[in-house]
Amino acid sequence: MTADHSDDPAFPLHHGGKIEIRPTVRIRDNEGLSLAYTPGVARVSQAIADDPALVHDYTWKANTVLVVTDGTAVLGLGDIGPAASLPVMEGKALLFKEFAGVDAVPIALDCTGVDDIIETIVRIAPAFGGVNLEDISAPRCFAVEQQLQQRLDIPVFHDDQHGTAIVVTAALMNAATITGRTLADLRAVVSGAGAAGVAVTDMLIESGIGDIAVADSRGLVTRDRTDLNDVKAGLAARTNRAGITGALADAMVGADVFIGVSAGKVDEEVVASMADDAIVFALANPDPEVDPAVAERHAAVVATGRSDYPNQINNVLAFPGVFRGALDVRATRITPRMKVAAAEAIAGVVGHDLSPTLIVPSPFNPRVAVEVAGRVAAAARADGVARA
Amino acid sequence: MTADHSDDPAFPLHHGGKIEIRPTVRIRDNEGLSLAYTPGVARVSQAIADDPALVHDYTWKANTVLVVTDGTAVLGLGDIGPAASLPVMEGKALLFKEFAGVDAVPIALDCTGVDDIIETIVRIAPAFGGVNLEDISAPRCFAVEQQLQQRLDIPVFHDDQHGTAIVVTAALMNAATITGRTLADLRAVVSGAGAAGVAVTDMLIESGIGDIAVADSRGLVTRDRTDLNDVKAGLAARTNRAGITGALADAMVGADVFIGVSAGKVDEEVVASMADDAIVFALANPDPEVDPAVAERHAAVVATGRSDYPNQINNVLAFPGVFRGALDVRATRITPRMKVAAAEAIAGVVGHDLSPTLIVPSPFNPRVAVEVAGRVAAAARADGVARA
Repeated sequence: MTADHSDDPAFPLHHGGKIEIRPTVRIRDNEGLSLAYTPGVARVSQAIADDPALVHDYTWKANTVLVVTDGTAVLGLGDIGPAASLPVMEGKALLFKEFAGVDAVPIALDCTGVDDIIETIVRIAPAFGGVNLEDISAPRCFAVEQQLQQRLDIPVFHDDQHGTAIVVTAALMNAATITGRTLADLRAVVSGAGAAGVAVTDMLIESGIGDIAVADSRGLVTRDRTDLNDVKAGLAARTNRAGITGALADAMVGADVFIGVSAGKVDEEVVASMADDAIVFALANPDPEVDPAVAERHAAVVATGRSDYPNQINNVLAFPGVFRGALDVRATRITPRMKVAAAEAIAGVVGHDLSPTLIVPSPFNPRVAVEVAGRVAAAARADGVARA
Repeated sequence: MTADHSDDPAFPLHHGGKIEIRPTVRIRDNEGLSLAYTPGVARVSQAIADDPALVHDYTWKANTVLVVTDGTAVLGLGDIGPAASLPVMEGKALLFKEFAGVDAVPIALDCTGVDDIIETIVRIAPAFGGVNLEDISAPRCFAVEQQLQQRLDIPVFHDDQHGTAIVVTAALMNAATITGRTLADLRAVVSGAGAAGVAVTDMLIESGIGDIAVADSRGLVTRDRTDLNDVKAGLAARTNRAGITGALADAMVGADVFIGVSAGKVDEEVVASMADDAIVFALANPDPEVDPAVAERHAAVVATGRSDYPNQINNVLAFPGVFRGALDVRATRITPRMKVAAAEAIAGVVGHDLSPTLIVPSPFNPRVAVEVAGRVAAAARADGVARA
């Protein structure tokens, strides 16, 4: 079974994992030991028992996020199980710290039932200031996130949904600007009705998109379909004001925006049928729904999920700053306004550099997380979900 | 409710917690991002999906321990709940790294049922190479440890039981040596039949102690008592060959060793009734069962749990090296032989410095964890529980 990985630099880089635990205080003698551990630590524990809010001050909770998956929808790999998902969770933890100073603990769950996932996370939640759900397959991911947020007083954020939605919204804000339009002027088509597709659609509706239609593998998600689960039926009810039926290609004729968040390919003639100044986000990884070189022949702005093309739609632009901001004010949840604030912050960082090939900033621009965190924290205060 | 902690140095030391997550690889550009995260990480995840044993090589699992409590028996504080237990769990994580380079993740569970605790830990176990149970009250702790070990292929170690037992055994080996005896020559009395009392008793039986009797708050744990739970009934069946009945004080007359692991006080005349060259381990913290200055009048060797007296019986002598050794060979469990090996290693580090006031090494002696780890790893191999 073991393949030869000797010429792939990803393997030596992953050897022994990508993160570690480090003490932030040093214990050099019995005096230090008696402060950081028994008996000194007992006084701190007793103080928290007397005043539970002090857990934010005297433990790592206020800066620490749980990064948790059940391993059912890992990147493009699908249901590979908890152990195999660990490198991705560690990667996330690495990025949380590197980009926003957030301590993130990777946990891979050996269970897949909605109730089991929720109950397990609730039980391990006391140590954490937030929960980043990751790579949980749809439609279970929606119920997990919603029910978990009802049970916890810390933010629950499914990054595959909202991280993607925030960065897509930011990118579309800037793509609209550079083509002389606003979101309200745009009719969009989303390919994919899973975690990302649903969240992108809802956030664009929230942000005032003119019209938006969604397609899954069987065609447009419309009210007359009888094969829809609850989540897709809800989507059908609040999308597609134009009332288009049929296949993805039917909605693409004259559309202003295409957002691909599934692996389904889109032919060149379908892209060619879009409106003038079309905007194409072909985000499937590693193989975009349409080759960006082909899309460029027909679109004014093209973005992908890849780092080797311009305009990479990468969640790392969002999640570090979103949690940084939420943790900074000890938010109890992530509200829609906090997500819009994050998108506006990301879009704003591009500033005067805005061009068809630069609609989102580089993930390595240090202003991104700072601006996102500041706007998210302010929105949390405005929404009354901040505790500090 | 909030007390003034301004003159207690334990509080500023605990501000923001005592540990953090740190990346072990740096991501400085898109190339690094594409190796540590998508798409490079997907190749590593796929390799683990194809060959599950690779999770030990390409994640932090092989060096990482779960430190987990339900907050029901925290130090001397009792049932203070999960949040208030966090500073203790973080302290443990700090010591794991500082003394043995082990990454330890502190988790405080918001549930106390035996089945709930076990099920939760099983579900989050894939990311860990071992489980250190901590501060779970007796008798639940026994069932949790035993059933959890049956379900997991990584070591499960309740430190309040076995850490204490290992260090007490090491100390008693050296106390016997310095008073010209072996463990087989000694009759011991243990005060306390909770986690520590049960484990200390069992390990001393395993190590060949001459005779040993245990007392709980109602007197000696004997076969004729009708108020014993299963664990104590088991203790009664395998202890007290001398057949002494009555109170703790009845067994202390002529006893060679007293081991206190409860808060129950012992009067001076009771200590005075012990045999010549008596050995007194008064381990209750912060208030020993008998004042060490009083004990010294009647005993040849006195130990406590405190750092401000000689002979501190401190679990930190054991758990870092025990897990270091177990992780180094990817052990599936901690066997009795591995515990005895740890005790012998700790006792052996004292070497020629052995004296009545130096029966255990300093926790800051860097040889301790190294020697313990080496002996534990060798014992794991001898017992056939090593995978590497």
